[in-house]
Amino acid sequence: MAKVLSGAGLRGQSAGETALCTVGKAAAGLTYRGYDIDVLADKASFEEVAYLLLYGHLPNRTELAAYEEKLMGLRSLPETLKKALELIPADAHPMDVMRTGCSFLGNLEPELTLEDQHQAADRLVATLPAIVLYWYRFSHDGVRVDTLNAHVPSLAGHFLTMLHDEAPNALHTQVMNASLILYAEHEFNASTFTARVCASTLSDMHSCITGGIGSLRGPLHGGANEAAMDMIEPWKTPEEAEAALLHKLAHKEKIMGFGHAIYSERDPRNDIIKKWSKKLSDAVGDKHLYAVSERCEAVMWREKKLFCNADFFHASAYRFMGIPTKLFTPIFVCSRVTGWAAHVMEQRANNRIIRPSADYTGPDHADWIDIDDRA
Amino acid sequence: MAKVLSGAGLRGQSAGETALCTVGKAAAGLTYRGYDIDVLADKASFEEVAYLLLYGHLPNRTELAAYEEKLMGLRSLPETLKKALELIPADAHPMDVMRTGCSFLGNLEPELTLEDQHQAADRLVATLPAIVLYWYRFSHDGVRVDTLNAHVPSLAGHFLTMLHDEAPNALHTQVMNASLILYAEHEFNASTFTARVCASTLSDMHSCITGGIGSLRGPLHGGANEAAMDMIEPWKTPEEAEAALLHKLAHKEKIMGFGHAIYSERDPRNDIIKKWSKKLSDAVGDKHLYAVSERCEAVMWREKKLFCNADFFHASAYRFMGIPTKLFTPIFVCSRVTGWAAHVMEQRANNRIIRPSADYTGPDHADWIDIDDRA
Repeated sequence: MAKVLSGAGLRGQSAGETALCTVGKAAAGLTYRGYDIDVLADKASFEEVAYLLLYGHLPNRTELAAYEEKLMGLRSLPETLKKALELIPADAHPMDVMRTGCSFLGNLEPELTLEDQHQAADRLVATLPAIVLYWYRFSHDGVRVDTLNAHVPSLAGHFLTMLHDEAPNALHTQVMNASLILYAEHEFNASTFTARVCASTLSDMHSCITGGIGSLRGPLHGGANEAAMDMIEPWKTPEEAEAALLHKLAHKEKIMGFGHAIYSERDPRNDIIKKWSKKLSDAVGDKHLYAVSERCEAVMWREKKLFCNADFFHASAYRFMGIPTKLFTPIFVCSRVTGWAAHVMEQRANNRIIRPSADYTGPDHADWIDIDDRA
Repeated sequence: MAKVLSGAGLRGQSAGETALCTVGKAAAGLTYRGYDIDVLADKASFEEVAYLLLYGHLPNRTELAAYEEKLMGLRSLPETLKKALELIPADAHPMDVMRTGCSFLGNLEPELTLEDQHQAADRLVATLPAIVLYWYRFSHDGVRVDTLNAHVPSLAGHFLTMLHDEAPNALHTQVMNASLILYAEHEFNASTFTARVCASTLSDMHSCITGGIGSLRGPLHGGANEAAMDMIEPWKTPEEAEAALLHKLAHKEKIMGFGHAIYSERDPRNDIIKKWSKKLSDAVGDKHLYAVSERCEAVMWREKKLFCNADFFHASAYRFMGIPTKLFTPIFVCSRVTGWAAHVMEQRANNRIIRPSADYTGPDHADWIDIDDRA
């Protein structure tokens, strides 16, 4: 059994090549096309990073302006898609809604040839925020949001405007922008690998991204920031948090938001989102959530030498911006769609269908038994 | 470059264990849980094979009767799903419709816990025929088909009844039943592997099957029977077919429906569907399509030592039953959903998240350049 699991999950086995990303270089690094994540999160806009991933280089001022304008022009949802989203009940899982909205768009605006791939990708980058928020606001509040928001230049601001009915302040826009950058790309993680397997059959962009959303939905993949929020939300003081965490550790309960399959020393995204969470905590006059989060970080390191991954301080940061917990993983989708689409294009450019083998563990041969003779 | 491609696509690398299927044993075999495909296609019903794959053994008479009744009770589409399907235009790709219909159903009837997995799988087995045909008949003919057809016991007959507005004759039911068995399962092919990668994040059944549909849509995977039909349809005599094929071979054009990535001597499914195609040809008084198909088989073997795979004689068989070409791959979905769901359950039972590595080919390090200094 040990033998089996050691080889399971393709851990450490190369499934192809990529020029998009390195994860865990020197145990702690993350780069997109060679650029350190710290630099990108500090200096770039999400639109710039999307362009870097999808078009291969950082845009100059003319290219960036044209790209921002293009994305703006692609934001509005087709009326038919809105009608479909209106049919989905309020108690649906938001990731099911995104998976369905992405798939539905593929019926209306199919990617017919490889020449359409950038258009299809940009359209999804531009529309996924509205796909989830049009449904969310309609089903929860009975409101049909403006899916264009022509007065809001960034996708970060567009998301928050659809959620809150007003353009966000500069700090919130800045944090959401950094968050979208942090989640944009992460090499051959399970959802990206799903998109690449799909791409390897030469299927269309919507199928690949739909598949990625479906895999990100899994609790072992996306959703750790939601689980972290659910855990820390009831704790009202650092002392209460510490006692509860120690209790969980003593009972070997699963604690989300710590450690990482590939980073062994630290998750480079944590320092960045933690800094933003602190600024938001100060700005909103938070009295306990940030302090609780910091105490959790200290306890987990002291007790288990486990560091916070990207998800842990995302929970408090999102909460400070008034984002409901169930929309945390959908924001991940709005970001990661750039990485998924870039991987789809990369797979297509040097493709062989991904078709592994399996170790057979079933019976060698079974003889047919007539139905009346079966046990 | 040769080095790269030899390792690409995970060819020959084990990505896990399965007890469901062997492909290519002795260069030509196919077994489902140890049973030879020839025996299953000859003696079983599709419902029996679905039960074998999903529940682990051939059902006895009581179990089969209960399972058939269960599937019958699960056939009808929810009204909300019908409304969503009515929104999809007639020129949509039928595989996009199935991907969307499967995903949409996940919003309405989510699989909330592992205890729901058989229910979710059986519901998809029962509804996927109606998902594609409700849309097809509504968008093409303005007809809202009966998605229950309580007078038609088999899923094979249910499919043909929705398509043709009348219950099929015994021969057509028999052929469709055999066809559904032949396509039900095929180890770690790309769509099944997609479903397993998705399952490895512990995502839900609808996400996994939606991902499988998206991958099967790719022209390198599903769709070979449609391509074969498109090729042979214009050829009116065996002589014309032979001349055209030789022309294609001389110009190195891709010819679909021949050869296989894993079978090296023959595809065991070909003998079976070829026999049925012949019977249908005789029954409908076909004067040329079967003869054209046989000539193609002879020419490809003589010229290239390439054998027909499962898809080639499926093309003529489906045409003899009056099935439009664009519905060929959707039938594949109605069948393969059983294999996908069985693999999802198997992955969940001994899971580790599937997260391979990649060979990095990008720049080691890139320095940030201020936007005004970019080329």
